[in-house]
This record gives sequence, structure tokens and C-alpha cells, in this order.
Amino acid sequence: MDIDLPEVVAEVRAAFDRYETALVKNDVNALDGFFRDDPRTVRYGVNENLYGYGEIAAFRAARSPVALGRKLSRTVITTYGRDVAVASTLYERPSAPRRVGRQMQTWVKFPEGWRVVAAHVSLMEEKK
Amino acid sequence: MDIDLPEVVAEVRAAFDRYETALVKNDVNALDGFFRDDPRTVRYGVNENLYGYGEIAAFRAARSPVALGRKLSRTVITTYGRDVAVASTLYERPSAPRRVGRQMQTWVKFPEGWRVVAAHVSLMEEKK
Repeated sequence: MDIDLPEVVAEVRAAFDRYETALVKNDVNALDGFFRDDPRTVRYGVNENLYGYGEIAAFRAARSPVALGRKLSRTVITTYGRDVAVASTLYERPSAPRRVGRQMQTWVKFPEGWRVVAAHVSLMEEKK
Repeated sequence: MDIDLPEVVAEVRAAFDRYETALVKNDVNALDGFFRDDPRTVRYGVNENLYGYGEIAAFRAARSPVALGRKLSRTVITTYGRDVAVASTLYERPSAPRRVGRQMQTWVKFPEGWRVVAAHVSLMEEKK
């Protein structure tokens, strides 16, 4: 198991950055494309537990596009082999002071490209 | 990429179940053994953001063993190939009524066995 092969990390970093851009713009079509279209895809969000691509897409379509801007910190992307990666990051939003966001995603490379198969986003009450 | 090969799912399910038993018992030595001993291992907990195996082990050692009992629901384990899996589950604790816990883990199989390389645990304020 090769960990953090530079070319693999670069691929995932590029996908992660594109996802972040889409998120801040609330580009729903782009966001949908990053998640694997499969009933086994899971996303736990700040206020919702979504099982399957259908629930995730419905959440995106209904989401308010207001105040999605955020600043990332302590981002770590680690790749395992050539087809799997985990991306973990903290974030802060001006709209949610004194709370620290945490986002963790598992990415898998399929023939169609890198896709998120599982994601968990939460807010912690006080910054540590 | 073979998804959910039955023998692989069975391996991960067994590891997941052993982890749950260790967690409820607060068996710190066992819990430490499930996480990959590596500075790249990440665990976001309910009240802490832990980067690296050292921080995770220190958290385990200091944790109160009180009221760790919990009931799991909507557990989904999905395997990608023979070496990677994601386990997602909700949980409820009698000590935290009206809050739903979410636990997501990414497991990777190394020569020494299946290990958690990333985990995120959070509480959602109201049940959905």
C-alpha cells in the first residue's frame, strides 16, 4: 500500500479544490457531480443525515445559497494506494463565529474519475 | 473496483463490531489498536479535533469511562476493493437524549490488519 504518492495526492488535491470552489458558489450541478451516484453514498451534514445519492442531491437543490463562504485550515489529504483518499479540513464561516466546522470526505477513484463516497460535516461549539 | 465483496464486508463488519465493544467498555488498549499508528491518522470527535495517532491515544487515555453505552442505527458498511471500507452509523445515548450521534470511519487494510485511518464523530441537535 503506497501512501501519499505525489501524483495521486495532486489529483485528489485538484478535485478537492474544485469541490471547494463549487461549494462556495453553491454550484449545485457541479456539487452533485463530485458525489458518487450510488445508493451507498452517505453524507452526514450539520443538520441532516443523508443516505444515498438521491437524498444528497435533493439537499443540494433545496439549500440556501446564502453565506456559504468559508476559510479552510489544517487541511490534510492522505492517499492510500492509487484509488482512495481521505480529505480532512477545519473551516470557519463569518456567519458562524465561535464555531469551528469540520469536514471529512472519503474519495474513491472510479473509471469516471474521483468521487466522494462518504462525507461528514459538523460544527463544534467552541474552538479548540 | 469491486464493491461490497461479501468476504471483505464480513472482515470489516467483524472489526467494526470489535471496535464497538471496546468503545462501550472504554477498553483503551483495544481502542488504540484499531486506529492506524501514523501521524496522518485524523479523528474529529464531538468536542475535539485530533491530528495524528499520538493525539488520539492521549484523548483515549484521558476520557471519562462514564456513560459510553449507546445504541446504533442505520449502520452502513461499504467496501471498495479489498483494502478499503467506510462505516457510517447513527447512535443514541441515554445520557444525551434528543441528540443523534453520527460516526463515520474510513478503514484501510494493512499487513497488520484493518485499521481506522480517519474518523469523524458528531452530535446533531435534533433528530431528523
